[in-house]
Amino acid sequence: MTYDRLIVGLDIGGTTMKAGVVTDAGRLLAEPTIVSTEPEQGQTIGLRKMVNVIRDAIDAAKVDLEQIQAIGVAAPGPLDLRTGMMLEPPNLKPWRNVPVRQFIADDFQKPTAFQNDANAAAYGEWWCGAGRGAGSLVMFTLGTGIGGGIVLNGRIVEGAHSHGGELGHIKVELTNARPCGCGQRGCLEAYVSAPAIVARADEALTRSDDRSTLRNLLPLSAQAVFESAAAGDLVAEGIVDETARYLAMAAANAMHTIDPEVIVFGGGISLAGEPFLQRIRKHVSEFAFPTPAQKCRIEAAKLGAHAGIIGAAGCARHLDPDSRLHAGSLG
Amino acid sequence: MTYDRLIVGLDIGGTTMKAGVVTDAGRLLAEPTIVSTEPEQGQTIGLRKMVNVIRDAIDAAKVDLEQIQAIGVAAPGPLDLRTGMMLEPPNLKPWRNVPVRQFIADDFQKPTAFQNDANAAAYGEWWCGAGRGAGSLVMFTLGTGIGGGIVLNGRIVEGAHSHGGELGHIKVELTNARPCGCGQRGCLEAYVSAPAIVARADEALTRSDDRSTLRNLLPLSAQAVFESAAAGDLVAEGIVDETARYLAMAAANAMHTIDPEVIVFGGGISLAGEPFLQRIRKHVSEFAFPTPAQKCRIEAAKLGAHAGIIGAAGCARHLDPDSRLHAGSLG
Repeated sequence: MTYDRLIVGLDIGGTTMKAGVVTDAGRLLAEPTIVSTEPEQGQTIGLRKMVNVIRDAIDAAKVDLEQIQAIGVAAPGPLDLRTGMMLEPPNLKPWRNVPVRQFIADDFQKPTAFQNDANAAAYGEWWCGAGRGAGSLVMFTLGTGIGGGIVLNGRIVEGAHSHGGELGHIKVELTNARPCGCGQRGCLEAYVSAPAIVARADEALTRSDDRSTLRNLLPLSAQAVFESAAAGDLVAEGIVDETARYLAMAAANAMHTIDPEVIVFGGGISLAGEPFLQRIRKHVSEFAFPTPAQKCRIEAAKLGAHAGIIGAAGCARHLDPDSRLHAGSLG
Repeated sequence: MTYDRLIVGLDIGGTTMKAGVVTDAGRLLAEPTIVSTEPEQGQTIGLRKMVNVIRDAIDAAKVDLEQIQAIGVAAPGPLDLRTGMMLEPPNLKPWRNVPVRQFIADDFQKPTAFQNDANAAAYGEWWCGAGRGAGSLVMFTLGTGIGGGIVLNGRIVEGAHSHGGELGHIKVELTNARPCGCGQRGCLEAYVSAPAIVARADEALTRSDDRSTLRNLLPLSAQAVFESAAAGDLVAEGIVDETARYLAMAAANAMHTIDPEVIVFGGGISLAGEPFLQRIRKHVSEFAFPTPAQKCRIEAAKLGAHAGIIGAAGCARHLDPDSRLHAGSLG
């Protein structure tokens, strides 16, 4: 079979790097190839691993390098999108100032896009996921950290200093604000990340005299909290509802800033599914004006674990195939 | 003198309507013409007043209607930007579903832009004010209410449901959240609008045993609070600093969402000037990541009381002069 335009997407994470060949319709040609990141081996080896996992993905898809039009790379922040560098990623120590885009573009001689992983996931959901066809989209990626991405008029809001869509670090509390991993206080991430959910549940158990089933599940995980809530445990239920309320507040703030057509929740917690989304929707009307509260769609992400690869590929699909500049994160 | 392109800007407010003829460089040709809005006389008379004050402005500028290329209108929300209507403006009762854009376009047979007043002010500051030349701008307009506007890639972020840039209603507190005039709780406006500043100062006086000079100034005004703070009164100083802190939090949230090149503060409170901006800048580093906190410029608005007129005119400057459609808030 022949394809008009094939793109490789590479998703760099703290634990693994994953790559896949993606069609112009956002479909993976084969299961992604995976390699351990092992950042402690240093960034020179890391860059070589990136190139190798891309080559493996092209092999796995049974296509030739000549058929690849462009390469898209998603990486965890902080990044300098203008120069295509990873700066000092906290989960990939000791990497520092890694020229990812240039290295890959030089090695493959292909136009290469470079994007924040949460931005890439948002772009993927807009391109061919839960926000397909929407004029604008805001996405929250929920996990060990909280990522965010904004797509407006078909373009990622990268920001003037590569900090657009850092939605995990909008503030949701000023009073008794919880400390965040970023060093500040009161960030959304400090309330709804998986470790923050566990911390709030632990505190609730300390405060409460309830015979919560959570006491049998120590040490807790966010998943255990969600499962116990679904099974009717009141302490767990309180934590889950509070989590939905914080996310609703963040969604309402996005409505009063961007006012997107759709807000997408992805990542681990989103596995809690439709009942959790319903809780978020219910709380949104407490925080947002009636019109956006009613009209803005709130959806679960559709691309799942492949959002980074597909989104990264999406970011590269409009790059000029004849370009030798390899410039610009979105061309 | 002849001009390439002249535009009329009309700024509709609850108390007055103001109009002026603006050059392609954002300069008013004459002092604006002003008429009382008197909304209680009804919207039919209101629409006729709009047309008349525009005609008066053209006369005052000593130009002919033929020289006018387009008309821009700024109005208080809620609006339907798509249809060009004012919906149910709380400060212009009993107006309801007023077809402002269509009425003006039909009367003058000119392409007519229609925009939220805070959005228009933001566009004006971007076009020829404090944000001139910036790639992106977020503006907060501080007064009896708190308005907001976002300009990205030269376009106002109107939102999918005309609620883009409603920055007065992002949430800044969840705990003991103050009620807002919008019916929700915890909005920025409920903390930093002029009446909210007075309310917080009144409460501080009730709590405090201090011999605050504010006690001699009852009933308070926001201006009195700022002046007493500048004169060294500790209670007033606390309120002003808390106000700056809330605005810094809102600015940091804008940095972690839009990450603009510049954030502009306009409206009444901004008269507090550079010392107040310095307080905001200081608090921003408490809430925002180091890069945007250091690099995002925080500036006072430059267009002052004419921001609405000039901004409205700016919104109309790219409308096709031959268009008979008069469509689109920004063309």
